Amino acid sequence: MSNKISKAVISRMPKYYRYLGYLKEKGVERVSSKELSEMLESTASQVRQDFNNFGGFGQQGYGYKVSELLIEIERILGLGVEYKTIIIGAGNIGQAMAKHQGFKNSGFNLLALFDSNENLVGKEFGGAKVLHDDKLEEFLAKNEIDIAYICVGEKSAQKIADTLEKGGVKALFNFALVDLKVGKHMAVKNVHLVEDLYLLSYYLNGEAR
Amino acid sequence: MSNKISKAVISRMPKYYRYLGYLKEKGVERVSSKELSEMLESTASQVRQDFNNFGGFGQQGYGYKVSELLIEIERILGLGVEYKTIIIGAGNIGQAMAKHQGFKNSGFNLLALFDSNENLVGKEFGGAKVLHDDKLEEFLAKNEIDIAYICVGEKSAQKIADTLEKGGVKALFNFALVDLKVGKHMAVKNVHLVEDLYLLSYYLNGEAR
Repeated sequence: MSNKISKAVISRMPKYYRYLGYLKEKGVERVSSKELSEMLESTASQVRQDFNNFGGFGQQGYGYKVSELLIEIERILGLGVEYKTIIIGAGNIGQAMAKHQGFKNSGFNLLALFDSNENLVGKEFGGAKVLHDDKLEEFLAKNEIDIAYICVGEKSAQKIADTLEKGGVKALFNFALVDLKVGKHMAVKNVHLVEDLYLLSYYLNGEAR
Repeated sequence: MSNKISKAVISRMPKYYRYLGYLKEKGVERVSSKELSEMLESTASQVRQDFNNFGGFGQQGYGYKVSELLIEIERILGLGVEYKTIIIGAGNIGQAMAKHQGFKNSGFNLLALFDSNENLVGKEFGGAKVLHDDKLEEFLAKNEIDIAYICVGEKSAQKIADTLEKGGVKALFNFALVDLKVGKHMAVKNVHLVEDLYLLSYYLNGEAR
């Protein structure tokens, strides 16, 4: 079943989850595919199609029960469990990620940061300590890590990714501006901020004008 | 012309730009669509189609001249000009964005940060000063700002976006986990980190397994 679901459908699920969370907070009990589509600037038929991929949860002329749909999407996305995370690179981005409240609130628990800079080793960010890069392999041998945030420079990112993969880390959240080569069992999500800015540049001053 | 070019094509341009930069650095002068496609894990025909959207720059059986293609993509993306930017919210993310070297190197010049926290006002990050939120409207009246980074919480983001739009800011780089409502002349690029993590969760523990 999972193989048939497109990335585009999956990528809309977090947004559905967020909007349904708003509705629940406001005490709304039921929502139609048309109402959902208006919130998401989509179409009612796309909303229905999206949920049909997972078996469909609505009822004709009745809509979706907000609390039930929330639980379904939580299940689809694999949320509601605790994930163990580490951050490689305790510079600006690494520190910001360590302190990010949204991650903690969503069950992504930071165990440690790693950096080669002696001045950072021993410091604490977001309740987790910075360990020396030297300790990474040993740490991975002792701890089963779900997600590692790669917040190092472009030149060391691939080497770090290799170490993480060998150490059994299952997914990478990559801020380095490189396309990491990893085995196909490993999930990678890139956040390429400079490239995102380039897209804004396109709309401001590029061929789009 | 620009209206016909899909977002998907545009979104691949920064990556082409990056890979061509690598090639130029290595002293490579020519590259075929096949070679480019292998670097980008795409197909040769997609590469050719992508560039055909902008008039096509290659020659049959000869490939692309790296330096010329770089200039073309720079023009397409509207790079090589200087952009004036401000950051709203000088917390963890705001500070990390202020210090981001990649932005400065690409012509995105930070003029100021804004925050309501008196303890931050007057401090400097990435060479720019934190001003009080109170000063934002006045600042916008005096300075033509291209891009504002929204690094405030979800609850104040829309109000800030309204002020920025009224003040003539042309594009928003939004880290707040909300979908901002702005006029259609304004470009918005969202970086929703928590939702990106949800997608990793899906691959680790969701329906994909």
